[in-house]
Amino acid sequence: MVAPQHEKNGRTAVLAAARDLFDSHGFHQTSMAELAASAHVSVGQMYRLFKGKEDIIEALVIDNADQWCAEMNALRRQLDGGELSIDQTFEALLRHTVDSEDEALAFDILAEGFRNQAVSKTIGDMCARFRNIIRYFASAANPRLTGQDLDAAEEVVLACLFGLGHRSLSRPRLDAACTAARSAEMILAALRSLAPAPDPRSS
Amino acid sequence: MVAPQHEKNGRTAVLAAARDLFDSHGFHQTSMAELAASAHVSVGQMYRLFKGKEDIIEALVIDNADQWCAEMNALRRQLDGGELSIDQTFEALLRHTVDSEDEALAFDILAEGFRNQAVSKTIGDMCARFRNIIRYFASAANPRLTGQDLDAAEEVVLACLFGLGHRSLSRPRLDAACTAARSAEMILAALRSLAPAPDPRSS
Repeated sequence: MVAPQHEKNGRTAVLAAARDLFDSHGFHQTSMAELAASAHVSVGQMYRLFKGKEDIIEALVIDNADQWCAEMNALRRQLDGGELSIDQTFEALLRHTVDSEDEALAFDILAEGFRNQAVSKTIGDMCARFRNIIRYFASAANPRLTGQDLDAAEEVVLACLFGLGHRSLSRPRLDAACTAARSAEMILAALRSLAPAPDPRSS
Repeated sequence: MVAPQHEKNGRTAVLAAARDLFDSHGFHQTSMAELAASAHVSVGQMYRLFKGKEDIIEALVIDNADQWCAEMNALRRQLDGGELSIDQTFEALLRHTVDSEDEALAFDILAEGFRNQAVSKTIGDMCARFRNIIRYFASAANPRLTGQDLDAAEEVVLACLFGLGHRSLSRPRLDAACTAARSAEMILAALRSLAPAPDPRSS
């Protein structure tokens, strides 16, 4: 039997090796034996830790989601505590997004999500967590958003975050800091345009 | 020597087979021999038409870009001819995007773009064409946009289109038609918020 601490270390080592090898060579081009060698664990231990590469992909998605949600929730606490305005919160959120790494790995995982039901479910669950936090931020930007307005806001903000976080092959004109600042400004204008505040002059 | 018409038919058949097999099974899980069989061409002819799978991926990207740009340019002509307002143009553009197919294949191609310089260049060139048309539409939505405002507009619209066209694993709450209509509305509000029109009351 593998001791729990030893098992945790082995798991961490395999996931780090997988992140590195899947990103540089691709998911399908990396064998379990290569992963074991790179993580300094035996092939037998590999298979005790993970049933196969699909299991590893799922663990990577969950890891990414946990880290991303932790960062988003930290921003949420700063917003709720009054340390950040909602404009600063969106800019920080976009800055995290634009700087995100592992784009090649993300695309491999997404492609796999169309061919593997377990991976698809894990990606869907991850997005559900993102959607909840995005919805909270959209409501903070415009407290009048309800119903379909809020659904539309959630959809567009999620799309923007995804697109801006996966743009490096598209030859961007603006650097990361500028993109984050200007995108935050545009997204906030879009959110505030829905269900606008009543014009004080008209009352 | 292969006759030109025969060559063109063979090329079309291989690309159709590639689109189908790469999308359902993945780029790396499909062999040249399987492609040849599915396209009803000999393996020898396959290799006369395409040097390898990378060549086929590049041809698919160029095909997709040509088709997508043709659709965008058709909208541009309708806008220029006064058949569509800019609001209707954005809604139609977003409707095309949200309905886009071959998401699994797109993710495989994008992952390949990080590992293969020729594919990366082809994707970058395709995005440059999209960026030009998006810039034209952004200027039509708000003729006061110049310099960095226009760059930011281009970046956010491209990101939205990409995100909305690749959202099916994220469990969207809104259907395609509603998403297109509401996203167009939000994007136009964002574009108009930059360099806003002078308030007539202040003059």
